[in-house]
Amino acid sequence: MKGLVLFAHGSRDREWARPFEELAATVSRQTDARVRLAYLELMPPSLGDAIAALVSEGAKSIRIVPVFLGPGGHTKQDLPKLAAAARERHPGIEIACEAPIGEQASVIEAIAAAIAKKA
Amino acid sequence: MKGLVLFAHGSRDREWARPFEELAATVSRQTDARVRLAYLELMPPSLGDAIAALVSEGAKSIRIVPVFLGPGGHTKQDLPKLAAAARERHPGIEIACEAPIGEQASVIEAIAAAIAKKA
Repeated sequence: MKGLVLFAHGSRDREWARPFEELAATVSRQTDARVRLAYLELMPPSLGDAIAALVSEGAKSIRIVPVFLGPGGHTKQDLPKLAAAARERHPGIEIACEAPIGEQASVIEAIAAAIAKKA
Repeated sequence: MKGLVLFAHGSRDREWARPFEELAATVSRQTDARVRLAYLELMPPSLGDAIAALVSEGAKSIRIVPVFLGPGGHTKQDLPKLAAAARERHPGIEIACEAPIGEQASVIEAIAAAIAKKA
């Protein structure tokens, strides 16, 4: 079984998570991988907890997709450290980090279209 | 002339701004409004400076689009305060704040599609 973690920032405001929960539900319908959300801070679950849950459910490989628009300290420093810790904790499980979703041209185009259609 | 401000978080990392700069360039090609980026913190220009620049260039109405994925403190508390200060500073100019782009179904669908196509 493959696991897919959508890794987002987190917020003190519970409502903040809503678009990410919608995203996780939408991705789940489009992939055979088991999808889980994880947050860097301020709300559970942590990346480590989400990965541990996927491994306990039988995941042999796990993709981590940063649901961040820009490539900054959270995706360039925090995430690699968390992923390294998860690899140490789960030897034999392949754990791969991808680029933040804001690096995808199709995502930028969709955001631009959503903004421009109201102009 | 209409102004359009893309309001994002900001980062210590200059490279973080790249997707937002691409977004601004893409939106500019799709609208007659004059488009400017502004950041909440850590990098210039501030929202107040971006709005002042648009007003000095002749903007009579300004849309502020929060380029944030989730609705949290930055868009629910910080942005309204900054927009209120801008309205006080520029009486007669219509300044409207919109929902964060992560609230748009088309944006969530595009992010989901970009993630799922690699699964």
